[in-house]
Amino acid sequence: MELIKNLQWRYAVKKYTDELVSEDKVDEIIQAINLSASSCGIQPYRLIVVTNPQVRQKLAEGSFNTQIKDSSHLLVFAAFNKITSQYIADYVAMMEQQRNLEPGALSDYKDALISHFSAQNPEQNAIWSGKQAYIGLGTALIAAAELKVDATPMEGFDPELFNDVLGLSEKDLHASVIISLGYRDAANDYLASMSKVRLPIDEFSSRVK
Amino acid sequence: MELIKNLQWRYAVKKYTDELVSEDKVDEIIQAINLSASSCGIQPYRLIVVTNPQVRQKLAEGSFNTQIKDSSHLLVFAAFNKITSQYIADYVAMMEQQRNLEPGALSDYKDALISHFSAQNPEQNAIWSGKQAYIGLGTALIAAAELKVDATPMEGFDPELFNDVLGLSEKDLHASVIISLGYRDAANDYLASMSKVRLPIDEFSSRVK
Repeated sequence: MELIKNLQWRYAVKKYTDELVSEDKVDEIIQAINLSASSCGIQPYRLIVVTNPQVRQKLAEGSFNTQIKDSSHLLVFAAFNKITSQYIADYVAMMEQQRNLEPGALSDYKDALISHFSAQNPEQNAIWSGKQAYIGLGTALIAAAELKVDATPMEGFDPELFNDVLGLSEKDLHASVIISLGYRDAANDYLASMSKVRLPIDEFSSRVK
Repeated sequence: MELIKNLQWRYAVKKYTDELVSEDKVDEIIQAINLSASSCGIQPYRLIVVTNPQVRQKLAEGSFNTQIKDSSHLLVFAAFNKITSQYIADYVAMMEQQRNLEPGALSDYKDALISHFSAQNPEQNAIWSGKQAYIGLGTALIAAAELKVDATPMEGFDPELFNDVLGLSEKDLHASVIISLGYRDAANDYLASMSKVRLPIDEFSSRVK
């Protein structure tokens, strides 16, 4: 399977060359992320692509992950702080439009979602949104690998700094997880030659037959 | 890109035919999930593949998702309730072994992880593990699609029932998210012919240049 080859090829790059990833490839990666599944189908996160060097310098402050600044592109998965009834109503209206349904055709679905999410507190909403972003992260890593673009998924960053510098809080978003994109500097990356470590398949998975 | 075609092909199947997915294909999907990235690389979740009909009947109780029982295979992503120092030590020992390093070569890494995770409370540990499982979920959906196996990712299930029936709690695991596998019954699945709904790309993503 192509996917398995791509997953074996990728690793969390520690050191990048100066080569930039073409905008065409970045666009394809974004398109793939946008096609990721999300629970209830409502895509409760947004993607911010940061290339501005000054902004990236600021975002890297205090983090051991120099890839935040030293890579071609930085993708920030910004998850919703809350799932508002207005957001659900707008999204479901878009669903009706994209599916050529009458306005209101999906109102039962809309009502069920509103009732589900309004019963949660904002913290639960935010955790839920963050998890959906991780599905997109899984897609992003695979998309990059298929294009032979290297990537580093990272949780080691200062979320409050990101929220502040990127103006996320005022949009009711929070930085959930990030990925840098670029090309591995294999000669200077200690991890490039290391074999991938994974659990034996029988330890990772089990069957109930 | 092959991935984009596969993501466009897939959808969250509501009704499956009786056709079974071959064990070879299920094994490939499991292998792909096992190759997914996880934060710190420590794979804090396990995958349980349920085919037993009685067990699946029980797991489906009280859920609107009939796919829990009516599909070929059910994959349960069971995330860790806590990240123990013992688990980290064992995993890092396995890293050293798989990378042909001296025992203790990664002890700084081990100590950093132990210090990081022991500073979190169990709830934070569990949320973190659950998020890693969602990366695997993203991979699973893509693996299935590449094999032209249909799938339904689901959060609509009773986690406590799953933890109980599958004996997860006693292993300090919890059901985080699930996927059914099978083949779409396109003639009887209202969703099969509906177009995929996604945000316009400029609404989903933005640039900081």
